[in-house]
Amino acid sequence: VPLKGWTRRCTVSCAALDAMMPAWIVLSAVPGLKAEGDGMEELATEKEAEESHRQDSVNLLTFILLLTLTILTIWLFKHRRVRFLHETGLAMIYGLLVGVILRYGIPATSYHNKTPPSCSLKEGPVSTLLLNVSGKFYEYTLKGEINSREIHNVEQNDMLRKVTFDPEVFFNILLPPIIFHAGYSLKKRHFFRNLGSIITYAFLGTAISCFVIGNLMYGVVKLMQVAGQLTDKFYYTDCLFFGAIISATDPVTVLAIFNELHADGDLYALLFGESVMNDAVAIVLSSSIVAYQPSGANTHMFDASAFFKSVGIFLGIFSGSFVMGAATGVVTFTKLHCFPLLETALFFLMSWSTFLLAEACGFTGVVAVLFCGITQAHYTYNNLSEESTKRTKQLFEVLHFLAENFIFSYMGLALFTFQNHIFSPLFIFGAFIAIFIGRAFNIYPLSFLLNLGRRHKIKGNFQHMMMFAGLRGAMAFALAIRDTATYARQMMFTTTLLIVFFTVWVFGGGTTPMLSWLHISCSCFLSTFLLCCRVGVDPDQDQQPCGDNFQSKTKQESAWLFRLWYTFDHNYLKPILTHSGPPLTSTLPSCCGPLANCLTSPQAYENQEQLRDHDCDLMRNDGDMTFTFGDTAITANGAVNGKKQGSTSEEALEHDLDSREQELLSHGTRLVFPIEDHI
Amino acid sequence: VPLKGWTRRCTVSCAALDAMMPAWIVLSAVPGLKAEGDGMEELATEKEAEESHRQDSVNLLTFILLLTLTILTIWLFKHRRVRFLHETGLAMIYGLLVGVILRYGIPATSYHNKTPPSCSLKEGPVSTLLLNVSGKFYEYTLKGEINSREIHNVEQNDMLRKVTFDPEVFFNILLPPIIFHAGYSLKKRHFFRNLGSIITYAFLGTAISCFVIGNLMYGVVKLMQVAGQLTDKFYYTDCLFFGAIISATDPVTVLAIFNELHADGDLYALLFGESVMNDAVAIVLSSSIVAYQPSGANTHMFDASAFFKSVGIFLGIFSGSFVMGAATGVVTFTKLHCFPLLETALFFLMSWSTFLLAEACGFTGVVAVLFCGITQAHYTYNNLSEESTKRTKQLFEVLHFLAENFIFSYMGLALFTFQNHIFSPLFIFGAFIAIFIGRAFNIYPLSFLLNLGRRHKIKGNFQHMMMFAGLRGAMAFALAIRDTATYARQMMFTTTLLIVFFTVWVFGGGTTPMLSWLHISCSCFLSTFLLCCRVGVDPDQDQQPCGDNFQSKTKQESAWLFRLWYTFDHNYLKPILTHSGPPLTSTLPSCCGPLANCLTSPQAYENQEQLRDHDCDLMRNDGDMTFTFGDTAITANGAVNGKKQGSTSEEALEHDLDSREQELLSHGTRLVFPIEDHI
Repeated sequence: VPLKGWTRRCTVSCAALDAMMPAWIVLSAVPGLKAEGDGMEELATEKEAEESHRQDSVNLLTFILLLTLTILTIWLFKHRRVRFLHETGLAMIYGLLVGVILRYGIPATSYHNKTPPSCSLKEGPVSTLLLNVSGKFYEYTLKGEINSREIHNVEQNDMLRKVTFDPEVFFNILLPPIIFHAGYSLKKRHFFRNLGSIITYAFLGTAISCFVIGNLMYGVVKLMQVAGQLTDKFYYTDCLFFGAIISATDPVTVLAIFNELHADGDLYALLFGESVMNDAVAIVLSSSIVAYQPSGANTHMFDASAFFKSVGIFLGIFSGSFVMGAATGVVTFTKLHCFPLLETALFFLMSWSTFLLAEACGFTGVVAVLFCGITQAHYTYNNLSEESTKRTKQLFEVLHFLAENFIFSYMGLALFTFQNHIFSPLFIFGAFIAIFIGRAFNIYPLSFLLNLGRRHKIKGNFQHMMMFAGLRGAMAFALAIRDTATYARQMMFTTTLLIVFFTVWVFGGGTTPMLSWLHISCSCFLSTFLLCCRVGVDPDQDQQPCGDNFQSKTKQESAWLFRLWYTFDHNYLKPILTHSGPPLTSTLPSCCGPLANCLTSPQAYENQEQLRDHDCDLMRNDGDMTFTFGDTAITANGAVNGKKQGSTSEEALEHDLDSREQELLSHGTRLVFPIEDHI
Repeated sequence: VPLKGWTRRCTVSCAALDAMMPAWIVLSAVPGLKAEGDGMEELATEKEAEESHRQDSVNLLTFILLLTLTILTIWLFKHRRVRFLHETGLAMIYGLLVGVILRYGIPATSYHNKTPPSCSLKEGPVSTLLLNVSGKFYEYTLKGEINSREIHNVEQNDMLRKVTFDPEVFFNILLPPIIFHAGYSLKKRHFFRNLGSIITYAFLGTAISCFVIGNLMYGVVKLMQVAGQLTDKFYYTDCLFFGAIISATDPVTVLAIFNELHADGDLYALLFGESVMNDAVAIVLSSSIVAYQPSGANTHMFDASAFFKSVGIFLGIFSGSFVMGAATGVVTFTKLHCFPLLETALFFLMSWSTFLLAEACGFTGVVAVLFCGITQAHYTYNNLSEESTKRTKQLFEVLHFLAENFIFSYMGLALFTFQNHIFSPLFIFGAFIAIFIGRAFNIYPLSFLLNLGRRHKIKGNFQHMMMFAGLRGAMAFALAIRDTATYARQMMFTTTLLIVFFTVWVFGGGTTPMLSWLHISCSCFLSTFLLCCRVGVDPDQDQQPCGDNFQSKTKQESAWLFRLWYTFDHNYLKPILTHSGPPLTSTLPSCCGPLANCLTSPQAYENQEQLRDHDCDLMRNDGDMTFTFGDTAITANGAVNGKKQGSTSEEALEHDLDSREQELLSHGTRLVFPIEDHI
């Protein structure tokens, strides 16, 4: 073939597609080969490349249209106030439908239906291979091992292979914005008030759940072995790994309904905080278990030294990622008030660089991004201009929304398009039982222990609700799809997929009846007024601790450790790291006067004046991003349904809010009319 | 090597990096190979993979920190009101510095310094190759041809190769948001008033420029051949291709300064419109020239039939992309007013699907995205909720900002890290001369012709300014880097890079002196008050044509063709496609009453009332996104400096605006104080 120049212009948009789905694009990125002499053959290659590229665009377009359809249906549901099916459940259903069509509807007319040529080497697989074709060298990169079964798949199911993503896309493109958004929107009083319980559930609870599920599944596997249903190896560490990936809860559906119904703030904080934290725990736990595996000759049995090594790795990775995320979060306070665009861009870049920095240091990027988000919400957020707080929230909200719906659509699709499913009824049944038992061992004993120390007890109906809200979602899926090479992992993947479907549809859909059955009160009256125009509003807006009023509340509600931390944070960290809070000159002892003067910004003095003048009101209003009345409503609701033990200051607050609520109702009626016009 | 399972968990974030830089990641994505038995060797592979992944993270981190540094310096410059160096020029300087460090500062300690093994095949290169290592099959994908020189480069300059992107990244990830943003922010009266002139400059002017430069460069190449400085082939079509890629102007620096100084609105519209449109023209022109090449035996000589075929391809691709973009732009009008998040997500997805749809149909995605942006700004924008108009603007603004600065940083970097530069002084000198002559042949004769028909003549000093503002930027670079395989293309790439540097630094920096030298007036007085807090504001906000007032203006200013189009658009298209504009019932003849009733939304009637009540005021205020006073100021400026020939309605407007300006000054002084506090 007389080819002179190799053009880099492979096909017009393969790189854009690459960005989304490296695995299946690289496969088909047959590069355009530029003509120098004549060449029928090379024209054919060009044509094939063009055709392949067109096919890729069509495939990606399918996903986009799937998302578009989901959004339109979500809108319809929100509009008609349908609550039994959440957007993520919907995305999965559409994904399933498209998966069925791709699998059974489209004839296997693949343009790439010849078995690729092979060549032999004696050495092991290398990352880069040179191919010598009549004196010209071509560079090839390793994609992976394929077994003989899959060589035929290359022929037959090119289309299905094409809609299969590289699993790393989930971990490195789709999860970080979701996790960051979760951390960034975590700023609220209820969260910090329940921090101890949340950490207990997330760390201890997830570890318990992991081991309970792991051991139960090991029993199931032994049973399968006896029943002769196991056709390949399934080790104890595999069971533990399954326990780790399936312990990451994701009650996004439940929380969306909590938002709409304005269910109890503490319960919301417990569930949300737990699900955010245990994602991080599950990642680190699963990689520790993987690291535990190849530690000796008898790899898959219990080994104390290897176990402690794993625990060490767990603690090392976790604390490293935590410190890294928190440090970057603290560093990124900006003084670019005047330029919201620059601020937003800088904020985005710093969050991303946290991810990369953690990866570069060998820690877990996703965990670092989570703590970066939490820290930024706590400190950096106060330094941003009002405009930038809106922009950053909205930017990450859109990214989060798209990524989440994409993952759930893809889950639906994967049930039919994934090539190596292993459906084992016994394993699946066992797993369903195991996750319930694991969840129960997490919630009930820990709640009992926590209640010994808590002033506000976690009541029985709250515990049942937490038990019920143990849905599995994006993180479990991402961890399961990350490695589907062995028999055990393929079975886990299939089972995880089914668990996600079941929990999201059944538990997600059953949230509203369950709430009323458990007598967990909601301010449904208010919520009907706010149902429209609520998607953009985050009801967990920061009801920021403000001034002395807050400190008195903290004293009552929190343990001494957190009281200590709060005082330190409020008096020293916030003034140094942000422009909010009291000036250091008033919180530091007088002997440190010069130092305090030096560290305090002029704005802090201004803030102090404002703090004295307006106290809470000022702070409460700065959090809302979308609709002013939205914030008022939520605050109102917090007071109406919060079941707080009224102190004097709280009663005053409540009174204030009641009057706001009245005000809101007049807003509310005005709000409803344009909706009716739409219908 | 006893490898059992091939894990998909290659290295933790390679896919995320893949998204950014497919070229150099795929190279180093040595997959982790999971242990099943023992294996020192495979542990070494795992370690190498981890090391490689860490290195990748560090490289990407370098780019992120580069951008962060650029943003911080931009902030400093804005703060100190430095105008001689624009952010893009700055990004290039930082890129250059990092390039120098990478090239000369870091010792070539590559972890991947063994020459890859090679194997032989008799057939031509295939996209997928199977490698048989002792019975196991591994899949490899084609990356490209490398010549013998580059095989050594694989050994030596792994680090430099790593920071070299796949050129398609520019075309498919970085350009679309930039181009879409340009189209989306194009909505303004000045643009549509000058539409005829803009189209003339963009289409006819770019074609003239392309042919003038192409022919001049052919002369230069012949000269080089005589002088013996040409070491490889350089065809006439290559020269034409160079003419096409270098004809895409990008006066982003100039326009930023125009914004700050509030230079003449018509001049701004002419420059901005031309640069946006000629990007599209240059893309299509260059691909038509490439398509023209392999059309016969005597490929590189003039061939009339091939020429007309190219023209046909040009028209086909262009009109196809145009229709596709415009159609999607019109389709995406939404009724999701209540849910800004859904609206924004849908808007984003629809814009992206336009790109994919065009690619899937064989048209040019970037061109389709441009027209999609323009149409969406004209129609869809009016249907979005107020919240969503802000969100979409801000989302694309951030994407545009990051992408643009990234491209310019990378340009600086590429000067030192790109491996195949060919510096030919004669060619470079010739190119500099040619682009000036080409630009002159574009601007002066066309301005003369346009002035014959224009009511507002394009004055001499405006023509000189347009001549001066012919900077080259992102598009020229992206087109040049797309194909750097042959000798000719490598020389073009080097030359293009130097032309971009020179024009951005020298012409960009010289804009302010040039404006005053040419006596083009600016409202610098006003601008000092608005210098801070202006980055986020787009001064070209839609001063939307409103009601009868606008129509009278249009009649005076535009040719009959555009008058006709405007009337049609205003009376029929806008009412059908958006909720703004007069209801159809009042614009259609009475015989079409039932049809009109059917097509008119209830909101249109409301709008009509509002239109009558507030006339222009209402419309003018709905455009601004960031600061209310920003909009006022810009509107004020438009009237003060617009050099319009006052009709009665315009004088009234001007009076109105003068009073606003007074108001603004009081705002302005209030505004300045907090800035001083910052310093």
